[in-house]
Amino acid sequence: MTKIPTLPRKHLFDLPEGVIYLDGNSLGPLPKGVAARAAEVITAEWGGQLIRGWNASGWMDQPGRVGDMLGRLIGATKGSVVLGDTLSIKVFQALAAALALRPDRRVILSDSGNFPSDLYMAEGLVRLRDAGFTLRVVAPEAVAGAIDDSVAVVMLTEVDYRTGRRHDMAALTRAAHGAGAVMVWDLAHSAGAVDVDLAASGCEFAVGCTYKYLNGGPGAPAFIYIRPDLQGVAQPFLSGWLGHEAPFAFDPTYRPAPNIERMRVGTPPVVQMSMLETALSVWEGVEMADIRAASVALCDQFIAKVEARCPELTLISPRNAAQRGSQVSFAYQNGYAAMQALIARGVIGDFRAPDVMRFGITPLYIDAADVTAAVAIMGEVMEHRLWDRPEHHAAQKVT
Amino acid sequence: MTKIPTLPRKHLFDLPEGVIYLDGNSLGPLPKGVAARAAEVITAEWGGQLIRGWNASGWMDQPGRVGDMLGRLIGATKGSVVLGDTLSIKVFQALAAALALRPDRRVILSDSGNFPSDLYMAEGLVRLRDAGFTLRVVAPEAVAGAIDDSVAVVMLTEVDYRTGRRHDMAALTRAAHGAGAVMVWDLAHSAGAVDVDLAASGCEFAVGCTYKYLNGGPGAPAFIYIRPDLQGVAQPFLSGWLGHEAPFAFDPTYRPAPNIERMRVGTPPVVQMSMLETALSVWEGVEMADIRAASVALCDQFIAKVEARCPELTLISPRNAAQRGSQVSFAYQNGYAAMQALIARGVIGDFRAPDVMRFGITPLYIDAADVTAAVAIMGEVMEHRLWDRPEHHAAQKVT
Repeated sequence: MTKIPTLPRKHLFDLPEGVIYLDGNSLGPLPKGVAARAAEVITAEWGGQLIRGWNASGWMDQPGRVGDMLGRLIGATKGSVVLGDTLSIKVFQALAAALALRPDRRVILSDSGNFPSDLYMAEGLVRLRDAGFTLRVVAPEAVAGAIDDSVAVVMLTEVDYRTGRRHDMAALTRAAHGAGAVMVWDLAHSAGAVDVDLAASGCEFAVGCTYKYLNGGPGAPAFIYIRPDLQGVAQPFLSGWLGHEAPFAFDPTYRPAPNIERMRVGTPPVVQMSMLETALSVWEGVEMADIRAASVALCDQFIAKVEARCPELTLISPRNAAQRGSQVSFAYQNGYAAMQALIARGVIGDFRAPDVMRFGITPLYIDAADVTAAVAIMGEVMEHRLWDRPEHHAAQKVT
Repeated sequence: MTKIPTLPRKHLFDLPEGVIYLDGNSLGPLPKGVAARAAEVITAEWGGQLIRGWNASGWMDQPGRVGDMLGRLIGATKGSVVLGDTLSIKVFQALAAALALRPDRRVILSDSGNFPSDLYMAEGLVRLRDAGFTLRVVAPEAVAGAIDDSVAVVMLTEVDYRTGRRHDMAALTRAAHGAGAVMVWDLAHSAGAVDVDLAASGCEFAVGCTYKYLNGGPGAPAFIYIRPDLQGVAQPFLSGWLGHEAPFAFDPTYRPAPNIERMRVGTPPVVQMSMLETALSVWEGVEMADIRAASVALCDQFIAKVEARCPELTLISPRNAAQRGSQVSFAYQNGYAAMQALIARGVIGDFRAPDVMRFGITPLYIDAADVTAAVAIMGEVMEHRLWDRPEHHAAQKVT
């Protein structure tokens, strides 16, 4: 069996007793130190410094500072990532700015494997524009062939939230550029999960959330990346005051900041931003290549063991690790009930209709022993049909 | 002297020793219980329940639940307010939806006393629309006369962030409607500060922030109100998944929720939303009419005492309380230095260029004794020209 690299980071998380947490692709667990940092921000900084906290505690510069911490994990050069808002808002900003870079074109191309909110935000933008704009959605495997010279923007999520299928970021970005289109990547299931190299990809924009593999906590702020040469060019259409060149000049008209800061909008969520900053400190000294190697090995191990022990389940993630993110999904007609039974026994994955059981593999705090233990419990649930006995179910959860 | 009603709520706040906090119009202070609530959400809910917190701890319903708590303070009927995002984003949502209600018109009318970010967001929306849309900005006193039948939307902030000048919400809304325009009110300096009656005003949209008079903490989420009859009509252009009729159906196309929930966008900031929920509990049993009466009396007292003790300062807030919000501003050519000297001596107000000294009056935790003590210190600073001695200055602050 493959030797799985050990990443001694599990001790940096507060994981509940008796739980094997395979849902870090939905909401990462609590890193140690985050609760204490939140308490400090609330009590000492807000409570003690009051309005003075904006300068005295560095609240105002935090979105860019945290952006640099995060940028290292996705291959972004310094000063090209900023935090704020939700991922849906960041999708809108990137799309609107991307369209403006190709004013002669009217098509946003995406795929049906994209997270629905990305498609919804694109729909909203198309409705807001006055004429002729279109969102064209094709199957994931049809994207490359659908990029033609009518396409203004290709917007894709690198890793499919249901199946874990991973797009070839470099190749699709090349294809987009070859047709004169702008490339927007959503890294929701990539940042902290796979080895992303934004700078090498050459893509113009990327966005993502921080509450999944980056463990920032529920509703942690999102991020946006702009390729350095475009930071003085990309238009901020959600032109809030904190993206202004001089927010505290209170100018009557908007002048965008000359750098990535132009993608800031309103007042940042200081407490959750500080929690995220602490959560990202877990990554100090961690190389994404090592995370990726461990993830691939653990996923391969998980697939092999599940297929051996639970033949009722059908792998719907790509078997080839190069085409897969850091989650493994199986189809099973009783998947909803089976997942409830698993959760009741401490193995927390999640379910997506109609029949998808998802398991996130997060090497920061999941190791080979966890995988072995999880599959043993899955085997019991399947063998004894525990999913068919409601007393073995957990309460429903929503995301 | 006017008898000033006592609102026994000061004990519900953690205020630093030796500080008279007259900047709650910028960032409200820390209500007791907020730090403990944040710790509970982080440790027990996120840490302990992990992904299950979305249902088990009611995270998903919180934006509407908190909306109802807040709605009571601004005269909104139940189910017409929802929390999320930043105020700038909520301005954009309201403006975009308002324009769509008057498709034959192209003008957004606002005033130069509006907070710059509102004007910037309108500029961004105008740039995003393809043709003919305009933001028309007039002086505050010229608004009523500028509402004609070219105006699609009148967008105003009720209380001016620099001067505290209060618009007549009912009259201007009537004027807008009389000309067939849609009315959008920004309540950033109104919610928790003055007696707003949204339902009676008949306005279509209102937005506001919660970190000023509502004490939600730095970067607390914003809110949006839609008049009940328009909740199934107003178009959500920032159409994120949590505004979808069935977010967890993961439909490929967007269908807006039939109610105020359609103005939700992405994943809510659960920790800061919970902090806000606790902060709003301070208002239980408080009637805005009482807050308003106390605010007027305290502001009048403050003005009278400052004018008697500090003749160098010139009142720029309306003297007539009916035309004033819950702050008092004075012009003074050395205002920046004077404010630094005041802050260094524990009287925290703030400064806005070129010469405005702002003082927020917040009867939840400021009483007549505070006003008297603050003016005594202002008198010393002015009489002895302490503002001209840098050793008496505080570190600069930004907002």
